[in-house]
Amino acid sequence: MNVSLLLAGLLSAAPLLTAMAQTDRKYPTAAETDPLKLGWMQGSPPPAGKVLRVSDNSALQWPALRWSVVHMRQLLPTVEVSPGLGAPSPLPVALDANIDKVTFRPWNARQPMTWQASLAENYTDGMLIMHRGRVVYERYSGALTPTNVHAVMSLTKSFTGTLAAMLVAEGKLDETRLVTFYVPELQKSGFADATVRQVMDMTTGLKYSEEYADPKAEVWQFSAAGNPFKPHDYKGPDGYYAYLETVKKQGQHGEAFGYRTVNADALGWIVARAAGKSVAELLSERIWRKIGAEQAAYYQVDDLGTPFAGGGLNAGLHDLARFGELIRNEGRWNGEQVLPAAAVQDIRKGGSKGAFAKSGHPELKGWSYRNMWWMTENAHGAFAARGVYGQTVYIDPAAEMVIVRLASHPVAANAANDPTSLPAYEAVAEYLMKQK
Amino acid sequence: MNVSLLLAGLLSAAPLLTAMAQTDRKYPTAAETDPLKLGWMQGSPPPAGKVLRVSDNSALQWPALRWSVVHMRQLLPTVEVSPGLGAPSPLPVALDANIDKVTFRPWNARQPMTWQASLAENYTDGMLIMHRGRVVYERYSGALTPTNVHAVMSLTKSFTGTLAAMLVAEGKLDETRLVTFYVPELQKSGFADATVRQVMDMTTGLKYSEEYADPKAEVWQFSAAGNPFKPHDYKGPDGYYAYLETVKKQGQHGEAFGYRTVNADALGWIVARAAGKSVAELLSERIWRKIGAEQAAYYQVDDLGTPFAGGGLNAGLHDLARFGELIRNEGRWNGEQVLPAAAVQDIRKGGSKGAFAKSGHPELKGWSYRNMWWMTENAHGAFAARGVYGQTVYIDPAAEMVIVRLASHPVAANAANDPTSLPAYEAVAEYLMKQK
Repeated sequence: MNVSLLLAGLLSAAPLLTAMAQTDRKYPTAAETDPLKLGWMQGSPPPAGKVLRVSDNSALQWPALRWSVVHMRQLLPTVEVSPGLGAPSPLPVALDANIDKVTFRPWNARQPMTWQASLAENYTDGMLIMHRGRVVYERYSGALTPTNVHAVMSLTKSFTGTLAAMLVAEGKLDETRLVTFYVPELQKSGFADATVRQVMDMTTGLKYSEEYADPKAEVWQFSAAGNPFKPHDYKGPDGYYAYLETVKKQGQHGEAFGYRTVNADALGWIVARAAGKSVAELLSERIWRKIGAEQAAYYQVDDLGTPFAGGGLNAGLHDLARFGELIRNEGRWNGEQVLPAAAVQDIRKGGSKGAFAKSGHPELKGWSYRNMWWMTENAHGAFAARGVYGQTVYIDPAAEMVIVRLASHPVAANAANDPTSLPAYEAVAEYLMKQK
Repeated sequence: MNVSLLLAGLLSAAPLLTAMAQTDRKYPTAAETDPLKLGWMQGSPPPAGKVLRVSDNSALQWPALRWSVVHMRQLLPTVEVSPGLGAPSPLPVALDANIDKVTFRPWNARQPMTWQASLAENYTDGMLIMHRGRVVYERYSGALTPTNVHAVMSLTKSFTGTLAAMLVAEGKLDETRLVTFYVPELQKSGFADATVRQVMDMTTGLKYSEEYADPKAEVWQFSAAGNPFKPHDYKGPDGYYAYLETVKKQGQHGEAFGYRTVNADALGWIVARAAGKSVAELLSERIWRKIGAEQAAYYQVDDLGTPFAGGGLNAGLHDLARFGELIRNEGRWNGEQVLPAAAVQDIRKGGSKGAFAKSGHPELKGWSYRNMWWMTENAHGAFAARGVYGQTVYIDPAAEMVIVRLASHPVAANAANDPTSLPAYEAVAEYLMKQK
């Protein structure tokens, strides 16, 4: 089960993890767990006790995970998302040193906190803020550098959802069709009578638990199926797709938002069939090469080369900012309409708040979920791609702001860092809106 | 042993492979084994019979290997050689369509062959010729594209040797020291009383066989040690370095050239100790970022993150051409002295022809080996980096020519393709020297 943990277990904000976050367990600080200071994987070879690997699970335990999040390709097989061969697009810079002094009040806290203090509080590895198309803030910590990429965990799902919304807007994918129109292999699964749109918004009713403490939870079977290091006696489904064929229905489709990673992987499959290429190839062709990405991104893959569309993407801070800007600008990049504006508009219109309210995210009151993006439904119309341990691309259209945070928080569920993140983003947005 | 084959078994021109090449077995042609036409790993998921993976050895069998050579990262953990974030350096182009018509006489053949015909004959995936700093010829075939990288197999060794020669020229590595000065861990191994120079030129006397048909050959233990997919009951050395500590001496150091991959890995270890960073980091910092490489390269790694310095590099055709030009120009790139000229001069002065003659490469009569480069010692002073299945960076200083070939020949040993390669390179050199 070691690699399983890495492959999917780490990657979703499941209710159980939310509960874990609400315990008062104290963790060592960001400074105390700095992966460079702790010396992991340094030296030729690293000394005993400083080696991190998948086979003994050492790479997957926090705080060692703080090293692993920027070295996933060294641990697992991966497939590239090529930026092509051109020069990277310029990212204009206009740094604002005052951002560090912006204060906000964390949820349920009496004392205010500064933006600067929030970075360490949230075990931030990389933080970049763009305002009106310019980089106004940029920080690196932990094992992240400008020339590294970082695991974005479930933030991957928003890429999958965006590619699907793009295909819908282009008439290449019909959201009203049943899933099986595109993927007949899912005929006997719980996805069979779901529509593409229900999968895109995760309103499917499926028997799929991501409760990691339960060894019978389906997440373990999914993870084992996608594990490229399968034990010799493994008898289960061969790969992510084969597992999806075994998912059972539970409840009704279309009634409630239920955050289940398998929806994103089913959507990745649907996208691959509709586009005739994998999400990795499509992301390269339609986005990465179009926005002048400066680094190749990559997906971890299963044993059949399937990119993990639910959580396997790794990308650089600058390139995630470019992607955020692309979305903020309704699909335009340097004057070119890279994504159909209708695709971004369909994200921004949000999902059903009623369906979301049934999902057991009490801390995200009034939010919705659309095309695998999290919609705050706040006055600014802010929305976000989110991944466990604190990954986010947070877009505030009213403030003309994009925040990208890469992090390695000790607690997977974002409920653990939202109290010191979301109000901070809102405070910075207010601050930036007052700037010329 | 499956992955072992990939990790090291495929990567060296051992005498046994030479013998295999001399059999008259007929193989399907390059066109018949085009990996795209054969449909490997196409589709979501690929259909049964078209899936290639390491666990069942399917990815490692020729002709499937023709797909795998450009998808190694999808099969194995890897570490990046970053080109940095800048724009790639321009590669001026002045294509010469007449090169296809250049003819040469293959060794032991009666009939001449055209350059164009030699490409398919040698199962060429990528061919690029630079003349006086300009690209005069460029072809892609098989699974290679301009935005892919290709396994360069033992050509990797010339990178390791070049980095070592660089450190020697800079006074950071003393070639007259014993290996153990830099790597005390090798005290009990056969490397203990060898000098750094002997390792650099592979004139060590070591008990190390790469005879793949012999299950007791040391190459299998080396490969098993480096295997990142170790079986649960594995008890042998943990990683490439740990294996090197077990290598025994056989014969005397300094007497004969003996092509053994472990020398390159020992040199990689020495370089890592002298530089304070791995060959992957050093290659990025000192070469890849300096020559404006357009794609990240990568090394396959063992379970401790050790780059396979003896054969694990993967790089793009253009970037290998940039590297070849860097060497041809004695370490200068666009006016900057990137590598010390003395390092390249030390390569070009060649090694001991006498030591080489004892090595069992009768087809390479009069050649020598220096800093892990193959020196033809011909009238043009041509020299080459070489890897099995036909990988080469061939530099002809007199003709101001660099040839890069990436290939997936059915026979590992270059003795199988040299008869239709080396005379072709000489013919093109003569042709180009006549051009204005």
